[in-house]
Parts: sequence; structure tokens; C-alpha cells
Amino acid sequence: MAMDQLLMQLEINTHGPGFTRLNEQLNQRIHDCGLSKGVVHLTCLHTSCSLTINENADPRVLEDLAAWMNAVVPQDGSGPSGPDGNRRRYLHDDEGDDDMPAHIRTALTTQTMSLSVDSGRLLLGTWQAVYLWEHRSSPHRRRVACHLIGDMANDFSERSQLSAAARSTTAALMARRNGTRLNDVVQARHVPEAWAQDGGVDTELDLLIDRLHDISDPSQ
Amino acid sequence: MAMDQLLMQLEINTHGPGFTRLNEQLNQRIHDCGLSKGVVHLTCLHTSCSLTINENADPRVLEDLAAWMNAVVPQDGSGPSGPDGNRRRYLHDDEGDDDMPAHIRTALTTQTMSLSVDSGRLLLGTWQAVYLWEHRSSPHRRRVACHLIGDMANDFSERSQLSAAARSTTAALMARRNGTRLNDVVQARHVPEAWAQDGGVDTELDLLIDRLHDISDPSQ
Amino acid sequence: MAMDQLLMQLEINTHGPGFTRLNEQLNQRIHDCGLSKGVVHLTCLHTSCSLTINENADPRVLEDLAAWMNAVVPQDGSGPSGPDGNRRRYLHDDEGDDDMPAHIRTALTTQTMSLSVDSGRLLLGTWQAVYLWEHRSSPHRRRVACHLIGDMANDFSERSQLSAAARSTTAALMARRNGTRLNDVVQARHVPEAWAQDGGVDTELDLLIDRLHDISDPSQ
Repeated sequence: MAMDQLLMQLEINTHGPGFTRLNEQLNQRIHDCGLSKGVVHLTCLHTSCSLTINENADPRVLEDLAAWMNAVVPQDGSGPSGPDGNRRRYLHDDEGDDDMPAHIRTALTTQTMSLSVDSGRLLLGTWQAVYLWEHRSSPHRRRVACHLIGDMANDFSERSQLSAAARSTTAALMARRNGTRLNDVVQARHVPEAWAQDGGVDTELDLLIDRLHDISDPSQ
Repeated sequence: MAMDQLLMQLEINTHGPGFTRLNEQLNQRIHDCGLSKGVVHLTCLHTSCSLTINENADPRVLEDLAAWMNAVVPQDGSGPSGPDGNRRRYLHDDEGDDDMPAHIRTALTTQTMSLSVDSGRLLLGTWQAVYLWEHRSSPHRRRVACHLIGDMANDFSERSQLSAAARSTTAALMARRNGTRLNDVVQARHVPEAWAQDGGVDTELDLLIDRLHDISDPSQ
Repeated sequence: MAMDQLLMQLEINTHGPGFTRLNEQLNQRIHDCGLSKGVVHLTCLHTSCSLTINENADPRVLEDLAAWMNAVVPQDGSGPSGPDGNRRRYLHDDEGDDDMPAHIRTALTTQTMSLSVDSGRLLLGTWQAVYLWEHRSSPHRRRVACHLIGDMANDFSERSQLSAAARSTTAALMARRNGTRLNDVVQARHVPEAWAQDGGVDTELDLLIDRLHDISDPSQ
């Protein structure tokens, strides 16, 4: 089956520093477009918030994770202590003391993430959640590109004019037929002798067969 | 050629903290499904071990990398020294002093990774290896989702009933034919006049040609 | 429409430690292969330089980011201060004091990144740029695998022999036709009675229709 793609954006309102769990809205989008099996590529479209996967059960894990970040990427306007024991003042401070640390925290986590979808749901471990991690001190409206690629039951592209009903009827019919028979016919015809006997001229059917091979042969 | 996908899971037994090299088993899976060109998406399905790429030659690189992690994400139950010089005790300590640091180390490395496959092998630099990095103190059984997408010689989906032998013969035959000829015929037929001369009724051949265009035209 | 893929490598000459912006050459490659919508997978093929996304406007952001890295992953031959206040000498020092820190900095950022392409351009936030981050002290020639997957107007694979002009004409013609009509014909023929009336033998046209269904039916 040909794979399809659908690119959308999630909008997330953050409430200052912290974690917004994305699992549910990602699974909703996956469900809405009928993606049964495929990949979801996420891109956080900012440089002061990021994506991360971590524990979904005990909220103290996220609290400890944020505390570690505060210790190693401090937010009081200076960086961490270097080997000389001194702390260096950030040069980029136009947007407040929380901005430059947010850029560093973003670089230490990630802005792109590719997750598998299986049986119409994100494939994650039992204890995993996908979070948008807001690193700025104040609330922000954030955007995450959500690119779904794979086998979609619902066809959102303009090209297909088949209704879902038509497709499922076709599939039902298809199941009763045997595709290898064409292959046998095609290969039987494709001996050079047969083509020569036709006078070396391709009929439209010859050309259609060629074109089908162009499109479908996975070993090309 | 249509791209195919195959989603499986690797199981890795770790022996406490350290690195398990995945290159060989990834290449084996790539080989088994005949993925000649495509992408492998990996998702580590845990929150206390992670994925990383680093040097495959001198084992002291991995030793130094682990030592850096021990210094900056200590495992004695408290976080690193903050700007005030104090160390904060982790709140999440139910599962032992090594658990919360494992969550932080996971957040600093990565849980998803997408690698290219070229000529049936992972495309990596000369000195690169892909590792599962166990961050817990005790051995664990770990799972990594391994999602292969691309041109697969071996078709694992139910739809294709062609044997590998049949496909390779077809490919050999195909190479001797010229696909542009069909296109010329198709375009010659598709002048509105020709269709009108047929009485404005589509023959099955007309419709087959249309359908081929639906499927194959890359500019749609 | 079937998705296509194209795998190439970027070569980047770095000038010692610092950031090389990749947006422009990535957009050029996207443009060259006519990728209108899809994904670009990047893999940095080295273990002492990495990929990162950060601010594209104020250069002091990158300066502060590098200064943070220098403080936390020092380059004088020893690691950072641990909980005991001591610094540990790196074991891997054959290639100079800047090499082991480069491996650690690589592990803290990323070597693989997947970005969406929309309307023929990288989908990034207003303030985002993609950088290759050189962590070694001296200039290096670096390679980044650039794997484009999606809807490509220009077909670089060997199989297609259609010129861009031919394809665009075909697309124009295609737009005037109705693909559902074939489906109706196909389904009309596929009643068991009709097939039985033909004597239970598949004509080549029957088999072509089957094969088209094999290839194109999205509900399989």
C-alpha cells in the first residue's frame, strides 16, 4: 500500500516553566486521520522550549528533572561555575534572565522527535509520556509541527476521489483475486521472441504492462 | 516504487550501567527484510536507559563519557551543586538512588533516533556506533522499537504474492523496456478531440490509463 | 501519490569550534529535487561534531551556548567537578585535550534530526536555524547525510524516464479526468456472475485490473 502523509500543527498554551503532556492530543490526531501504522515526526518550532520523553507516573520525576536543570543551567543571569570556579554573565540578556538559559536547556533536550504508530496509537513504553517542556518563566503559546506518515485509512489528500465505502468494497473484491496470474502472463509475453513475433511494435497493452512494472516492482 | 514499512522490537539484556552496541543486530534486521534504501526509526521504550551514537574504537571514550555523566548527574541521591553551592536531595527515590539520575541521563541523551539505510546497511560514519545506554545499576531487559521504512526487496505485507525470484526476473525484463513510450501513447490519446471522436465514452483502456496516472504521477 | 526518497551527503568545511548554519543549503537541496512536502532526515557522520537547532538572530546566543558548554564540558584535559569536588583526568587523550570533550558535547546535543518540509521549504520556527556544531579545536571537513523523503516533482530515481515537461503535461491532462469511473467499471466487472459468463477465464484486461488494485488500494 502506498504511504500517505499529513502535516499539521499543534498549538499548546503553556503556563510558565513546566511540562505539558502531549500523548492524548497526538493519539487524537492519529485517530482522526486514520493512521494505523506509521511514524509521527514532531518539530518544536521554538528555541526556548523543547520536547522530551520521561516518566508519566510520579510527578516528582519531572520536579527533580526541572531542579537538576535549574542547578546546571541556572536562571539568575550567569552560567554555571567553570573549572576556574567562576560564573560567566550571559551576553544575551535583552529578553530577561530566563531567556538564555531557555536556549541552552532547549539544546540539551530536543526539538525533533520521531515516534512509531502501531495499531492506530503512539508506540511508547508503559511509563513514557511525550512532553513539551516550557523553559521560559511566563506563559507562551507554542506550536509543534506534527507530521504523520504511513498507512492512513482516511485519505486527506485531494487526489483520491474514492469514498471510504468504495475503497472497502474494492478491497473485499480484491481479496478474492490472485495477482500472481498477471505476473505469469506478463512474464510469458516478455520473452524477446514473442515481442519479435508481434513485429517489434508495442501494443497499448504491452505498454500498460511496462508501466505497471515501472510503478510496482519493488526490486527496482 | 512504493515504499514499505516494517515495525518490530529489539530486546536487549543489559548488564547494569554501560553501553550495548546495536549496529550488528540493526544491520541483521535490515538484511532480513531486504531494506536496500530507507530509514530506520528507533524508539527506546523506557525512561531510564537511552540511545546514543559515539565512538566505536577506543573503549576509553565510553568510559570517559560515563565518568562525565557520573560527575554531572551524580548517583548518590542528590543532584549537582547549584549556583548556591548546595546539592538538593531527589524527591523521587522509591526505586533507589540510581533511578532519578537515570531519568535525567535519559533526558540529556535521546530516546528516538532516525538513521538512513544505504545499500542495505546503516549509513554511519567510520567511527560511529549506535548504543543502548543502560543508566540503572542492575541488569534490565530493554526493548527498542525498530521501524524500517523504504524500499524492501522482501515484501512482508500480505498484499504481494510475488516470490523474490519472480520479482527479480521481472526487474531484469523491465530493464530492457522503455516506459516513456506508454507516456507518449497516453498523451497522444488524451487530446480532447480524440476522446470526442470516440463518442465521448471512455473505453476500459481509457480508464485504465487514467487510473495509472492517478497512481503514478509524481507531480500530483 | 507514491512517496519517493533521495539520499545525499552534504560536505561542510568547519573553521574550528563554532556553528555552521545549514538552512540555506538544505533548502537548496530540497528545491533541486522538487520535494514539495516530506521529511528531511539528517545524520551527522562524526562523533566530535553534532547537530543543533537554535536562535538565528542574535549571535550572542550561540556565544553564550558555547560558553556554557566550555564550563560544563571543559577542554583542559579533565572533566567537570564531581560531588566530591575533584576533577577526573580523561583517559582518552591520544588526539588532544579537545577530543574527549568533543565526544561528550556530541552526546549532549544530537547526531540525527528529522525536519518537515512544507511548500518546498524546511518547516522551522521564525527564530530557528539548523547548525552543524564543530566541537574540535581545528578546522575539519564534515559530512552530513541528508535523506529526503516525500512528494518529489523531480524524479531522480533511475526508474522514471519521464521528463519534467512530460510529467507536468500529464498532470494537467489528469486533472480533467475522473478516476472514479474506472472504479465503477472495475466493480461492475467483478461480480462473480460476469466472470463466470466469460467462461471463468481471466482476460489480460481482467488481470491488469487486478494488478492495479493490488498496487493502488489504500485499504489493504
